Amino acid sequence: MIIQPILDLVAICAKKGIQNAILSPGSRCAPLTLAFARHPEIHARTIPDERAAAFIALGMAQQLGQPVVLVCTSGSAALNYFPAISEAFFQQIPLLILTADRPTEWIDQWDGQTIFQEEVYGKHVKKSFRFPDSFKQKDQVWHAGRIVNEAINLSKQFPAGPVHINIPLREPFYPTEGEKFEYPEIPREFTLVTSQTQLSEESLRHIKNRLQEVKRLMIVPGQQKPNPQLQTLLDQLAKNKQVVIVSDSISNLQGEQSISLHDHWLGNEKRHAELVPDLVITFGKSVISKSLKQFLRKQSCSHWHIQPDGQSKDTFQHLTRILACSPMGFFTWLSQNLPTQEGNFAQNWMSLEKRVQAALPEIFESVEFGEYLALHRVLKKIPPFSKIHLANSMAVRYVNFLGKRNQEIICNRGTSGIDGSNSTAVGCTFTTKEPVTLITGDMAFFYDRNAFWHNYNIPNLRVILLNNHAGGIFRIIDGPSKQPELEEFFETSQKLNASHLAAEFGFEYSLAKNQDELEAALLNFYTPSLRPKIIEIESSSPKNVEILKQVKEKVKSVLGEF
Amino acid sequence: MIIQPILDLVAICAKKGIQNAILSPGSRCAPLTLAFARHPEIHARTIPDERAAAFIALGMAQQLGQPVVLVCTSGSAALNYFPAISEAFFQQIPLLILTADRPTEWIDQWDGQTIFQEEVYGKHVKKSFRFPDSFKQKDQVWHAGRIVNEAINLSKQFPAGPVHINIPLREPFYPTEGEKFEYPEIPREFTLVTSQTQLSEESLRHIKNRLQEVKRLMIVPGQQKPNPQLQTLLDQLAKNKQVVIVSDSISNLQGEQSISLHDHWLGNEKRHAELVPDLVITFGKSVISKSLKQFLRKQSCSHWHIQPDGQSKDTFQHLTRILACSPMGFFTWLSQNLPTQEGNFAQNWMSLEKRVQAALPEIFESVEFGEYLALHRVLKKIPPFSKIHLANSMAVRYVNFLGKRNQEIICNRGTSGIDGSNSTAVGCTFTTKEPVTLITGDMAFFYDRNAFWHNYNIPNLRVILLNNHAGGIFRIIDGPSKQPELEEFFETSQKLNASHLAAEFGFEYSLAKNQDELEAALLNFYTPSLRPKIIEIESSSPKNVEILKQVKEKVKSVLGEF
Repeated sequence: MIIQPILDLVAICAKKGIQNAILSPGSRCAPLTLAFARHPEIHARTIPDERAAAFIALGMAQQLGQPVVLVCTSGSAALNYFPAISEAFFQQIPLLILTADRPTEWIDQWDGQTIFQEEVYGKHVKKSFRFPDSFKQKDQVWHAGRIVNEAINLSKQFPAGPVHINIPLREPFYPTEGEKFEYPEIPREFTLVTSQTQLSEESLRHIKNRLQEVKRLMIVPGQQKPNPQLQTLLDQLAKNKQVVIVSDSISNLQGEQSISLHDHWLGNEKRHAELVPDLVITFGKSVISKSLKQFLRKQSCSHWHIQPDGQSKDTFQHLTRILACSPMGFFTWLSQNLPTQEGNFAQNWMSLEKRVQAALPEIFESVEFGEYLALHRVLKKIPPFSKIHLANSMAVRYVNFLGKRNQEIICNRGTSGIDGSNSTAVGCTFTTKEPVTLITGDMAFFYDRNAFWHNYNIPNLRVILLNNHAGGIFRIIDGPSKQPELEEFFETSQKLNASHLAAEFGFEYSLAKNQDELEAALLNFYTPSLRPKIIEIESSSPKNVEILKQVKEKVKSVLGEF
Repeated sequence: MIIQPILDLVAICAKKGIQNAILSPGSRCAPLTLAFARHPEIHARTIPDERAAAFIALGMAQQLGQPVVLVCTSGSAALNYFPAISEAFFQQIPLLILTADRPTEWIDQWDGQTIFQEEVYGKHVKKSFRFPDSFKQKDQVWHAGRIVNEAINLSKQFPAGPVHINIPLREPFYPTEGEKFEYPEIPREFTLVTSQTQLSEESLRHIKNRLQEVKRLMIVPGQQKPNPQLQTLLDQLAKNKQVVIVSDSISNLQGEQSISLHDHWLGNEKRHAELVPDLVITFGKSVISKSLKQFLRKQSCSHWHIQPDGQSKDTFQHLTRILACSPMGFFTWLSQNLPTQEGNFAQNWMSLEKRVQAALPEIFESVEFGEYLALHRVLKKIPPFSKIHLANSMAVRYVNFLGKRNQEIICNRGTSGIDGSNSTAVGCTFTTKEPVTLITGDMAFFYDRNAFWHNYNIPNLRVILLNNHAGGIFRIIDGPSKQPELEEFFETSQKLNASHLAAEFGFEYSLAKNQDELEAALLNFYTPSLRPKIIEIESSSPKNVEILKQVKEKVKSVLGEF
């Protein structure tokens, strides 16, 4: 039997610009599966492991800036979505999650594949709706359409995020012979007309007064998508007004004037008064650099956060003002209303940046081969149009450490889990023909290997696998490295290498244990191919730690006391 | 710094009989990790993928009848536990889930690995506790101990289930040099003294009167652990009082007198009046047989369920009485108080059972090689002391179809997901030296491959992999098999075979594409070895469907009209 409101649901999705659905196999969800698979404007793919499916959808939505639909069957399938949903929630990525369910009367009756699906994602979705389970009343049909419209509007509205519709379905699920799918030509739609928030004239006057007192302004962009216009504006601000911009790689705003090598020395400053801002302005989402966070938490500076909906975290424990407007609008205004900053604040930061920058070539020359040097070489070879996906936890830290990037940097820093990096990168490959480079450690890589378990080609995927046979970060942080349980319970040393996996899933595979092998492997790494490629860089976890220590020591000796 | 209440927590666990903990790597959970790893009476193992870790713990607790501890770090790690937690909840398996968390003030501040962990499992745990995040007050220390006692008592109390303690932890996490772990010799404990519920004399008189009117009594045991005493009692009841016992393989109560081949003919009965019970008594958990459920839902019989806590589902839609007592006690009483049933009810059922039984050898001779015949051969070779783990969804249906088993049958029928069968079986191997046989399809097997990603030996694991390169069940159920989307979106055809996986994780591997190859592979399959073994039985999904149809047709022609 065809359930017309399900066809209407899909038609509304298409009308509202949704072009992609990731389905997972199941019987209860069959009406949804068929309706998405058959709609001419929606590209449906099927991914068997729901955990991977949800991260793949996330990886797509991250690029498209449009919700991607997820469809799963009833029961624990929905729970396997949860890690990606929490990531999408904190990273503000729009997802429309459709979980098929048994009708209410069959919940908790020991019938198969049944859990308590309503509101199951708790606070990790923007809202959870309950689709009607019968359409005998006209009002129920209207309600169904209203829910779909509300859900999609809400998932896109700033801050974007996942929205859940739980859909109870009764048998029969399948069209009988001769029954034809008819999508409504003009489905019932209500649009959210986008708006902009701007600060009032009075607020701006007030802020302008306040800015007169600011002598050392620091701008710290959090995680966001690349925005060349904003980057130019920030560079000009830094140049003209002597503002300091400190930007992590995930900010995608590492302009010419920005500071990016701060992790090399922050925490070592002695006469830090000259480096302390009196006002920090942030926008976007999270910041990676722990040393920057700790540095700012120690100071007594003010902190303004720009976010259109007037909400903000208090990351540095000094939040004083939330500016409910767009960053672009605010910085345009700021560039015309900020007095040029006085003193040596900007010069101090820039001088440290430049001294580290100047010291690096020699450092690269002097250190042994390991993850640090390997990544430095790899980063030089990544084409400018490749997206770079970074896994938690060491890959993103290394890349952040290694300085500015021009490519778009993507990393699941919403919850900072290792659970879905492969899948997120795979999702990205579904949205572009340019190469997608995933840089990952062995723990994250093997954890999410089901990312590759499907029938879709991912020829533009390039994986750089840093295999030190352990969760190397635990050897770097002080506490665990001193415990006898380090290897078994923290690093969780693991023996795998990726050659079996590469053969199984059809990757071109190279192994690099030294610089020559790496250079050889990189030579044709980015030439187009029919298959994805992987370079496995094998290194020793203790040696990697040693190298990082050496690098920091060398920087310390170059900088001296400051 | 050592957090003494965490050491106390572990000591209370040990005092209360908990002997096993499954840890996953992380930094926030370090105080828990160290405290469990160092406790002399607790065996701690570490499993990197939390989804697998939780199913492994479930597989252990299922066997041990004691809670197994789970420890994970903060963030999405806890969400990866969720599929196993829902299975444990519905299958009534005790788990003590300890999720490390940041202290409240750092939740939702864009700090890494932070989600909303409190109450995150919703209705799928028996209770969720919040551990104190500071121990400056004496009352807080007392509260911590109270929580641990309550949580463990609750997880074991009938019906057993998962209990969650969210544990906010502040840095520093690690003992400083010279700090020594001191577990309290006599940790503070309060015990739940177990009790038994019995029906009152008055209730029994009333029930006895009611039983005078019962002419056709059917007993349907749901999923439970083997209970030889109960099985003897039920067999006697059937023999002496002419009661019909219909038992699925997961009931582990397939005694001599019980009906187990009902799936071969239920639904085909024409003169069904003679087969219809006037009272059905159930106990235990869920029933697999869809045909039995549908048969009983159609009738107007009464239904009594025996469950000590007085709760019951209404699986057949005719629930009339809940007997709040133990099945053993009730059936002992029943055997002395039930008048012998009259009429041909029991003979009718037993005659059908025997006729199918008699027809089977010829059917096995006549059908082509495929999953049906392969499993029949495999089941004959499984040693009596092997536990048999069945994956959803076809493996469990096949085995149920193929008649009575003497071995313990285990299957995740709480939520009936495919997501954790490998891990559950791996967990089982940690509890026994006898062989553990996992029978699984390709979808369930590859879905949960991270079950094998750890450093522990599982030499007693034997995997029978039915690889038809798809979710074969979708071709068997009518609806999807007629849709053009069958292969891509329902069966989700997948190309993998297990040889790569076997090489990667060190399995002895054999491939069987026909009966001879299967017999050869089975020859030494159960000889002890240092490595786990896998037989991959390759077959074609369409042919398997064809064979099942043939079997049912043959049974139909043997039985004629009845």
